[in-house]
Amino acid sequence: MSERTVGILGGGQLGRMLALAGTPLGIRFRFFDPSPDACARDVGALTVGTWDDANALCRFVHGCDAVTFEFENVPASSLDALESIVRVQPSRLALATSSDRIREKRFFQSCGLAVQPFAEVGSAAELDIAVATVGVPGILKTRTLGYDGKGQRIVRDARAAQSAWESIGAVPCIYEALVPFDREVSIVAARTVVEGAAQFDAYPLGENVHRDGILHTTITPARVSDALALQARDAARTVAEQLNYVGVFAIEFFVADGILIVNEMAPRVHNSGHWTIEGAVTSQFENHIRAVCGLPLGSCAPKLPWNAMVNIVGCVPSPEKILADPACKLHLYGKAARAGRKTGHINVSAQSERALIESLAQAEQALAHSSC
Amino acid sequence: MSERTVGILGGGQLGRMLALAGTPLGIRFRFFDPSPDACARDVGALTVGTWDDANALCRFVHGCDAVTFEFENVPASSLDALESIVRVQPSRLALATSSDRIREKRFFQSCGLAVQPFAEVGSAAELDIAVATVGVPGILKTRTLGYDGKGQRIVRDARAAQSAWESIGAVPCIYEALVPFDREVSIVAARTVVEGAAQFDAYPLGENVHRDGILHTTITPARVSDALALQARDAARTVAEQLNYVGVFAIEFFVADGILIVNEMAPRVHNSGHWTIEGAVTSQFENHIRAVCGLPLGSCAPKLPWNAMVNIVGCVPSPEKILADPACKLHLYGKAARAGRKTGHINVSAQSERALIESLAQAEQALAHSSC
Repeated sequence: MSERTVGILGGGQLGRMLALAGTPLGIRFRFFDPSPDACARDVGALTVGTWDDANALCRFVHGCDAVTFEFENVPASSLDALESIVRVQPSRLALATSSDRIREKRFFQSCGLAVQPFAEVGSAAELDIAVATVGVPGILKTRTLGYDGKGQRIVRDARAAQSAWESIGAVPCIYEALVPFDREVSIVAARTVVEGAAQFDAYPLGENVHRDGILHTTITPARVSDALALQARDAARTVAEQLNYVGVFAIEFFVADGILIVNEMAPRVHNSGHWTIEGAVTSQFENHIRAVCGLPLGSCAPKLPWNAMVNIVGCVPSPEKILADPACKLHLYGKAARAGRKTGHINVSAQSERALIESLAQAEQALAHSSC
Repeated sequence: MSERTVGILGGGQLGRMLALAGTPLGIRFRFFDPSPDACARDVGALTVGTWDDANALCRFVHGCDAVTFEFENVPASSLDALESIVRVQPSRLALATSSDRIREKRFFQSCGLAVQPFAEVGSAAELDIAVATVGVPGILKTRTLGYDGKGQRIVRDARAAQSAWESIGAVPCIYEALVPFDREVSIVAARTVVEGAAQFDAYPLGENVHRDGILHTTITPARVSDALALQARDAARTVAEQLNYVGVFAIEFFVADGILIVNEMAPRVHNSGHWTIEGAVTSQFENHIRAVCGLPLGSCAPKLPWNAMVNIVGCVPSPEKILADPACKLHLYGKAARAGRKTGHINVSAQSERALIESLAQAEQALAHSSC
């Protein structure tokens, strides 16, 4: 092999961590992002441009051996232009499926997976029908472009539905039943195709706690039965096969009364897989790069049995206090602080659940003491 | 803390791996190297210049919060200029000690460590005395600038001593007894000073096998007694304290008849510590950056009990075959192939010695099958 270059659409922390993981494989990275401050610029060349500038995008990918993204809402017209030049993975099918919440839910149903009751909302009349059919409480979400709790409103009373819809712009939405759940879990999985043969692997199921709609902690393995964990893994395999998926992806589930209800998928490396940087034999970032380059996957097995991650949100800590705990693995993204913005995370590993919970509490305490 | 920038003198694979390990701490990196192709340029800004160009070096370090090196033979005059601007670690004392084999040996003796018999060679007459005193077989090494077996000649017959000396330029040398040893081992250790308090830690002792004067494999822990391993750790601690050392360093020893004989030290991250990237809680590269930034050390403990590294020398393998083994961790440096040149390494970890030896053999086999 001569040297490979991978182009990444988006230059945020995911792009940065992809490059940090892929560089040791002898791969070079370049990034495309609308912001000249995109934090991945520390680990590769950054091209600044807008997502609809197909010419700039084509110049950017010229000379790339593969292209992937950390920002999945690249306009279809730009992807058309890119795909005429270079292999872009994950595929259009995966993007199109996951970027539209209605299409995504129907796809999950076609895979035989349980979803919460939902209805399509394209008009005020449809909203009334949706709320009547699905019931309250429910949650109204924009069909496209939502993340980290943005573009969502909870509807507790049918009479408040119209104003909730108007407050998110009266754009096309999905209305879902608000499922009372015991746990939120996610599976991060990888699929590659090497010389026509597909290879699939998944990391242990993660258990997620959100705060203000933003992921706060992930603990793995999730405290669920082996049967449920296996069911999640099987779901990921089915989804990957149906989409002929290449790369790493995540599926989020609710666990309600011992039943796995699929919530949504992300066609990229995922925040709930950040623990894999030190915690797994091969990180989600390395496996994603391997897959988009057509290389075999590395092992998804954890090194120590218990692993956790806590996000750093809204502030940039001084590292002294965090690094004073010799077991804390700090990951800062080189981003300025802003309310609700993820600026880093801390990973911890342990031999037992109890030791992990202790380490995680220490990490959270260190974070609280680091001007954060 | 606002953002830190670290300047690294030298832009080879060590600089590259230092930046890959330090970037997640929110630190930016820049490199100074005489070659525009220096492989660290993938992970930071590269300034091209000669080591004696004090002006270029001063421009380079302007704005750096700390400066360190992966190339330890920076001329003293350049270091003088740099130190007037910014903190350079490890210190001049460490550099001066390790860069002169005679001074280094005397320093080890002053630390109470056993060294092989040696003598100084500054003239033809001194060479005769040295060979007569130390005996044959012996090894003649240039006092300065030797590495990877370069600038060395074995003397098996006293009558061949003069021609051996002439073949390495008749420069000032050390003549050492050739010790018949059972094993070669090395300890990689780290020391930092945080708010006036020193902190020391060391990785498990590594056992090294060389081929043609170049490190071939490291296995850790070394197959020696606990007492001997502890003795090596104590030696490292003494050396670090005597030099008021800040950063990571390595000491190489011979084990002969159960006795530890110190060979030489390297005032930087070391090839025999490359296994720490995945194998230790904190890699030697991260700990070096922590130390030169005045931050606390991370744990040097191994994650799995057994770890090994095999160097890739003289070729650049295609990664497919190596990555097909899901347990092989590949590290390519982005360097072109050249005879005797290190272009990468492979790390493997295991729960038992037996499993490690098997993994290592598989890695070597994969390497042999990858056009390498």
